[in-house]
Amino acid sequence: MFIGAQVSLYPMTSGFVDVILSGLEALAPHRDRLRIETDDVSTLMVGAPEPLFDAIRDLFARAAKEPAHVTLHATISRGCPGEPDDDLCRCETLTVGQSLPLAERAALAAAAVKQAPVLGVGIDVQFSLYVLGQDRHMDEIYGCIDFLKASGTFFKSKNFCTRLRGDAGAVFETVRQAFLRFGPAEGHVTIDLTASANSPSHG
Amino acid sequence: MFIGAQVSLYPMTSGFVDVILSGLEALAPHRDRLRIETDDVSTLMVGAPEPLFDAIRDLFARAAKEPAHVTLHATISRGCPGEPDDDLCRCETLTVGQSLPLAERAALAAAAVKQAPVLGVGIDVQFSLYVLGQDRHMDEIYGCIDFLKASGTFFKSKNFCTRLRGDAGAVFETVRQAFLRFGPAEGHVTIDLTASANSPSHG
Repeated sequence: MFIGAQVSLYPMTSGFVDVILSGLEALAPHRDRLRIETDDVSTLMVGAPEPLFDAIRDLFARAAKEPAHVTLHATISRGCPGEPDDDLCRCETLTVGQSLPLAERAALAAAAVKQAPVLGVGIDVQFSLYVLGQDRHMDEIYGCIDFLKASGTFFKSKNFCTRLRGDAGAVFETVRQAFLRFGPAEGHVTIDLTASANSPSHG
Repeated sequence: MFIGAQVSLYPMTSGFVDVILSGLEALAPHRDRLRIETDDVSTLMVGAPEPLFDAIRDLFARAAKEPAHVTLHATISRGCPGEPDDDLCRCETLTVGQSLPLAERAALAAAAVKQAPVLGVGIDVQFSLYVLGQDRHMDEIYGCIDFLKASGTFFKSKNFCTRLRGDAGAVFETVRQAFLRFGPAEGHVTIDLTASANSPSHG
């Protein structure tokens, strides 16, 4: 299993480099459980969903505490057949939990969101979940959408994606649960995620 | 068939609103062939791949002519089973061309990139193509990667995505061809795309 993300932070301010550097400081507690490599477009983070989503959340929450409008984009993937196995990415929730029926997985996902830490930073997220390589992929997608609507962070449905809104702790836990609990354990599952904070056109 | 994108423009400057408004002017020639709706996170564009990719390209190329570092993100989708049919999205390339063998489709894609207009704006793109709802999705992905490597715009492979580099005309034509020529005609195909220009850390 190979799990990771390509992550980019976009502060809409001429001082964007300082905001990015400040955000990167928030990655420090997670670096020993992730492999992190940066180029001019994005930062690769490889590791299990536990440190991976914590790191993305903390990076964005730190940047969102600055006054500037800031967004983050992440391409998140598990089980891509073209990637090698990596011990850093072992995840018991996937290997044990995914054999449960859809309704039980949705209940576990909802319980995890209720226990998410409160970070005190309000954010918006828009994301799409893709379950690849199986004929009946929409069953898992619709099951996931039901979970999202009851998660407490659901804001609205849009074409091609779902909007969440709330504290960064609950919102990123919702996305992690969507990634972990839907789609087969060994399947290829990806997320296209955008987070936004401090938008002048916040609706 | 329903085809469209959620598109966001991120200028890394305190004058970001002006850059976005200038970019939106470049959409004018395409508005009669697209349905366009904006909220605080992204702009929905619905229509056939011809005006859709032209509009995304022109929006980004206009913004990239400003001096500021700017990025664009687009979540692009065709054939999502949850979306209604829309006459705006009719596309002969999909309905006729997709019955050809993979090698012939790749050759048509390569020919289209050679005929792309030159916009005089150098850009970077990073994107992932997802072919959903079929067991052998990786055959189409690997066929697409072969096309990308020979496209003239290929820059490098990364985990989870492919980097392109070159003139905005050729780069966006490469992405359109990836979207059009790979995956079944009636299939659910999506792209997670990031474009970048004027980066201070351009590698």
